[in-house]
Amino acid sequence: PSSAVRASAGPDAAVAPAPPEMPQREVARALAEKAVARLGPRLLPSAVPDDVAEFRNGAGNAVGSLDVRRGAPSSSIDFMLESTLHCKVPNGAIDITSILIFLNTMTDAPHFLLELIQGSSTSIVVILDLLPRKDLALHPDYLQKYYENTRMDEQRSKIEELPQARPYRSPSLFVRSACSPTAVMVSIDCGQGGEGTLEEIVHGQLAAVSKEVLQIWLECCADSTAEMDDAERDCLLKRDQIVRSKSIEVDLTASLPRMFDPDVSSRVISEIRKAFGVQEP
Amino acid sequence: PSSAVRASAGPDAAVAPAPPEMPQREVARALAEKAVARLGPRLLPSAVPDDVAEFRNGAGNAVGSLDVRRGAPSSSIDFMLESTLHCKVPNGAIDITSILIFLNTMTDAPHFLLELIQGSSTSIVVILDLLPRKDLALHPDYLQKYYENTRMDEQRSKIEELPQARPYRSPSLFVRSACSPTAVMVSIDCGQGGEGTLEEIVHGQLAAVSKEVLQIWLECCADSTAEMDDAERDCLLKRDQIVRSKSIEVDLTASLPRMFDPDVSSRVISEIRKAFGVQEP
Repeated sequence: PSSAVRASAGPDAAVAPAPPEMPQREVARALAEKAVARLGPRLLPSAVPDDVAEFRNGAGNAVGSLDVRRGAPSSSIDFMLESTLHCKVPNGAIDITSILIFLNTMTDAPHFLLELIQGSSTSIVVILDLLPRKDLALHPDYLQKYYENTRMDEQRSKIEELPQARPYRSPSLFVRSACSPTAVMVSIDCGQGGEGTLEEIVHGQLAAVSKEVLQIWLECCADSTAEMDDAERDCLLKRDQIVRSKSIEVDLTASLPRMFDPDVSSRVISEIRKAFGVQEP
Repeated sequence: PSSAVRASAGPDAAVAPAPPEMPQREVARALAEKAVARLGPRLLPSAVPDDVAEFRNGAGNAVGSLDVRRGAPSSSIDFMLESTLHCKVPNGAIDITSILIFLNTMTDAPHFLLELIQGSSTSIVVILDLLPRKDLALHPDYLQKYYENTRMDEQRSKIEELPQARPYRSPSLFVRSACSPTAVMVSIDCGQGGEGTLEEIVHGQLAAVSKEVLQIWLECCADSTAEMDDAERDCLLKRDQIVRSKSIEVDLTASLPRMFDPDVSSRVISEIRKAFGVQEP
């Protein structure tokens, strides 16, 4: 390995600051534990190498973690991915926490997605969704089953009604297209001096709503299986692949290389690609 | 015809108040004229009976108009529909103005849609979109062609950035699913005493943005044709039919019968169904 690799990942790596115990991390950790407890043996043990499970950059200002657990053979779970990124920037730090639980083609039920992006101690972007796997305008029955009957929109409202919440428009039209009409996509900004308020919201409404959304997913999606003919399965597979490839393109190839040395970010991206089952572009 | 029909539609009908010259009507009329001028002979003459072209209710508190022009044979225009509804309510009036220009399966380009819903003299709901006809998560090339390359999102921003604008969430998840990620879906509320401000916004930013969106549609969609294989055309046709049926269900069977006598609303709905090419449910 090159000296850069050693410097950034070896035991003699520059010591980056330990990731702080942020409320967003605690919320994500509680969710992940709930999912793991419920999915039980349907999740295989963690499958990422140590230098991806935790990674730092050479300059010592960024640290990240990635955990991927694949679904057990013959389960409908494709993988569960948890990641955290913490990067010091001149005026503070950027923290990104994600939980993705993706299903395979034994079912067409939605995936679970949570992404928390915090660029300051007083504001956070929240993306929380049951990610649809079919064209909702072509499949009103699917819309009804997973979004109307589950009353997902009430969860969205609870967050959007917060006086500190404004809609968050992803700059990527694709990301917006891929999300459901009940997705929580908000920026919560508590303004100067609002650190305490933000903590309360994250520990309060955000924790409660993400827990309820996960509960809906566990009850309605995680165990579901669907009969599909070949054409339907092909379409599902193709759509899944496009959504996965585009998500990686938009999310990770955009943010990881800005925070980490090229060898680190490419190693992490390659592990995520493996989980997603998508090739290099 | 029954006396109810005569009373509500005949020459001896109760005289409803003439629809006021509202700014939203003027904006819609200017758009319709622009579209008609540009589409020219691709639109056939108006094809609705007189008692649908203008209709009133027996109680004299509601008046509406509907104009449908079908596309000429061998053109890609399916129909252009313009409608206005004006209904006095205890605390004022409700006014709804719509323009829809729908394409047929000679192309898969988006339809044009404008809907303005005004429940008071100081607030208005705006839905303005190039209505996608393909699953955008499955067809990123389509998203790029009609929404990214046309910079539609800049038009959306111009309206959403108004301090009086808040996102409008249609109560119908289907409507939200059918719209593009660049759709203008806002409620503009100018607050007490804001009549003048609302007029300025409607004549100003709203007129300008809807004109630009129509211009984009005329340039990129109205003349487009697409090569499709049978499977693609079948899928397009099926999706179009579902979107049309659901729109009628959500929009018109919900609002028309509340404003007009049953015979009037069913006559109007039946004419709209004919334009949309969808059957009674």
